[in-house]
Amino acid sequence: MKVDLNCDLGESFGNYQIGNDRAVLPLITSANVACGFHAGDENVMAETVRLAKENGVSVGAHPGFPDLQGFGRRNMDMSLTEIYNMVVYQVGALKMFCDINGVALNHVKPHGALYQMAVRDEDIARTIASAVYDIDPQLYLVGLSKSLLIDAGKAQGLKVASEVFADRRYESDGQLVSRKKEGAIIEGTEEAISQVIQMVTEGTVETISGEVINIEADTICIHGDGAHALEFVQEIRSRLAEVNVDIVTLGG
Amino acid sequence: MKVDLNCDLGESFGNYQIGNDRAVLPLITSANVACGFHAGDENVMAETVRLAKENGVSVGAHPGFPDLQGFGRRNMDMSLTEIYNMVVYQVGALKMFCDINGVALNHVKPHGALYQMAVRDEDIARTIASAVYDIDPQLYLVGLSKSLLIDAGKAQGLKVASEVFADRRYESDGQLVSRKKEGAIIEGTEEAISQVIQMVTEGTVETISGEVINIEADTICIHGDGAHALEFVQEIRSRLAEVNVDIVTLGG
Amino acid sequence: MKVDLNCDLGESFGNYQIGNDRAVLPLITSANVACGFHAGDENVMAETVRLAKENGVSVGAHPGFPDLQGFGRRNMDMSLTEIYNMVVYQVGALKMFCDINGVALNHVKPHGALYQMAVRDEDIARTIASAVYDIDPQLYLVGLSKSLLIDAGKAQGLKVASEVFADRRYESDGQLVSRKKEGAIIEGTEEAISQVIQMVTEGTVETISGEVINIEADTICIHGDGAHALEFVQEIRSRLAEVNVDIVTLGG
Amino acid sequence: MKVDLNCDLGESFGNYQIGNDRAVLPLITSANVACGFHAGDENVMAETVRLAKENGVSVGAHPGFPDLQGFGRRNMDMSLTEIYNMVVYQVGALKMFCDINGVALNHVKPHGALYQMAVRDEDIARTIASAVYDIDPQLYLVGLSKSLLIDAGKAQGLKVASEVFADRRYESDGQLVSRKKEGAIIEGTEEAISQVIQMVTEGTVETISGEVINIEADTICIHGDGAHALEFVQEIRSRLAEVNVDIVTLGG
Repeated sequence: MKVDLNCDLGESFGNYQIGNDRAVLPLITSANVACGFHAGDENVMAETVRLAKENGVSVGAHPGFPDLQGFGRRNMDMSLTEIYNMVVYQVGALKMFCDINGVALNHVKPHGALYQMAVRDEDIARTIASAVYDIDPQLYLVGLSKSLLIDAGKAQGLKVASEVFADRRYESDGQLVSRKKEGAIIEGTEEAISQVIQMVTEGTVETISGEVINIEADTICIHGDGAHALEFVQEIRSRLAEVNVDIVTLGG
Repeated sequence: MKVDLNCDLGESFGNYQIGNDRAVLPLITSANVACGFHAGDENVMAETVRLAKENGVSVGAHPGFPDLQGFGRRNMDMSLTEIYNMVVYQVGALKMFCDINGVALNHVKPHGALYQMAVRDEDIARTIASAVYDIDPQLYLVGLSKSLLIDAGKAQGLKVASEVFADRRYESDGQLVSRKKEGAIIEGTEEAISQVIQMVTEGTVETISGEVINIEADTICIHGDGAHALEFVQEIRSRLAEVNVDIVTLGG
Repeated sequence: MKVDLNCDLGESFGNYQIGNDRAVLPLITSANVACGFHAGDENVMAETVRLAKENGVSVGAHPGFPDLQGFGRRNMDMSLTEIYNMVVYQVGALKMFCDINGVALNHVKPHGALYQMAVRDEDIARTIASAVYDIDPQLYLVGLSKSLLIDAGKAQGLKVASEVFADRRYESDGQLVSRKKEGAIIEGTEEAISQVIQMVTEGTVETISGEVINIEADTICIHGDGAHALEFVQEIRSRLAEVNVDIVTLGG
Repeated sequence: MKVDLNCDLGESFGNYQIGNDRAVLPLITSANVACGFHAGDENVMAETVRLAKENGVSVGAHPGFPDLQGFGRRNMDMSLTEIYNMVVYQVGALKMFCDINGVALNHVKPHGALYQMAVRDEDIARTIASAVYDIDPQLYLVGLSKSLLIDAGKAQGLKVASEVFADRRYESDGQLVSRKKEGAIIEGTEEAISQVIQMVTEGTVETISGEVINIEADTICIHGDGAHALEFVQEIRSRLAEVNVDIVTLGG
């Protein structure tokens, strides 16, 4: 049994530092690298690809809306053609840094509002899947487990990776409970760890209303910043080891 | 004997239209496509690559400073690392649109202030050449004839293409007479045509002070906008034909 | 009886020219000047304020979403605080150009997607009205006739100006028929002129379903670009004159 | 005897946090607030003006080049008209947040590369002074002591404030020793404090070559970030108190 640990990286911009990339890289297997639209810039991308390579971490593109001020978290009403081209541009730019560094681009994971919109909007999901496929049919498409993006990736003929969250509660349909609702976040470390172990080893999760539903868990979303983020990753790693789950990159 | 005709294309942005791309494409052999920093955006890039393909015109990347407001014409004091990464990012993004459309990326020509700075600044010239080489050693590097960029490209092991201008006067060292000086622009069509024919067929040009110097003329810079631009290109084409100069793309 | 003619101006950006500002200025009474977020930049703003002054045209601010690529026409999911501050920033910047030129800022009209969202979203309407009031309680707030923005402006204690469109059809609730629906645009010049005359002189309009509803018409939206735009404005002006409607700026 | 302590504030942008505004505000008398071009955005500006007001700190505008990626520290070759309009736009936007909060805008200090260019370039210095005067002739113009910007401000009829640096060494002409030269930075706290006390109380400074030159010291540049920044400010404050120098805002 195995699982990937992915983390959003390369989100600094110019003089602005964000995240804790050097500390988290030794703990993860896949880096989602921002591509200059919602975060990151070409200098940060070059550095992040180099750091990922040094740490033996797979590189993926993390395209987002052209909204640096909103960090790609504000929905934007873009046409499907605009979304397609926006993904191609960003992934293309990142891929060149990979090529120059002799690193394979391994996956694409949409960021923020784009990721969320692709959970429920079939047209957007299909457009992203189609762009990723046109870029390289061997890429993994990473999306929320049980989302339309995962469906669209499969329909397109892509390899997909279903992402799960340790510290978020789930609805009965497999979607995340909105952060606006009470109980959306699992506060206790032990409970979060238990949930993620169960998702990986049993393929199930207990929803906020108490049912147990099936869920795919190919990759776990890791956060690198915050006071206890790194300790939490360490804890996940050791607990996964205890139950004989290997931590390996997508396709590894 | 042969020469390439290149033109800056894909400079529209969002709702803003600039240039006359559809009209000029049938008349040229190489398109320098803006990459979203000084002009162009991902939607314009997608469309421009498609149009170039339809017209059998070679595609090149036209990277510039991150200055849409200044159209990449304002010098910016960027570090060499920033310039290197800026070129990689922009060319990478454009190359992906080429890959998706089954079009080969054939050349890179820096834009505006970056082009001008690479004429005389050895470090910048070398940095651009190095970025282009790292992207793909088979690319042509296009720069002003007799400039340091051409030298840097050769030293790097790249194929280079020396660019000449029909309507600009030359200094004794082969540089363009600054637009700020009297007599920088050749106003008469016949004189401009004669100059360009001489540069291509004899490899010489008469400078503003009356000497005749050697000059390489691999590619002629064509403008697509302005009242008489298209007629002027037509005239160049027929005059080149009269003296048996083939109009073919770089390496064609 | 009187009415204002307003037009969006100052939408050029850097090297990019858009609109026909110099030609349309003598024909209108209010200029909605873009403020650098969805269109325009500080140089265009300076020039536009000067031109408006020369032509004796009132100046208003035309704030929009921070989306130059989308020309402010793509909905963005911004918080109310973000919208408030975005309006303050843009109007403040424009007002300084007015102050320096000894021109009074007379109105504020939200642009594009922001304008449309303020038609139906009460919170956004109230936020815009509140920002405009805090900037200067003497400003006119311009919005779609019968929209929530007009209501919010009145509730806030602002002077409001209800805007009507000559060439758009109306729904029974006074809203514009969506451009996506058949029959949204009135193609015939005569029909468009008749509609606008009726709105101004009788305060009514025939909706797409044939009813006649009441509508306020304080200001008519004028377009400066397009093949026949200027002729159309001329025609509106002469027809309004025939029925003794004065064309004067808001509050004039 | 009195002196002002000024600090660059409001440099965060969207999700990106920079500086230590809340901690440094109680220790200074003037805040230079970034205006959205090189740093800051409208939400940060609104918050910074409010915080400055709460702390009884004077607010000034800190306009810079339109270069968020370079944090306004990269020279840009802009025309004088562009510089003039850029200053008007940014100061206008900030002033509106001041007006709404009932706070007087007290000064303008150019940022980064614009500040440095105004030290030695007479045209740029004059252009900035002229923009500030046109905005409000009562504003203080803050610039490097003995710079052309100070001269230009005086010639324009503005009140000027000469800025000094505790931890930088000076050339014989009163300019700062370039950071690229050895010995540009004073590493020892005691030496830095002594230099600043001498500048304020005696109006002199010992240059890097050992001479003692005259220098005006109306305001001291304070840094809010860095490991020991706040302690250093505390130390400056207590040492100034010991020699009976009052710490008051410009004009206070």
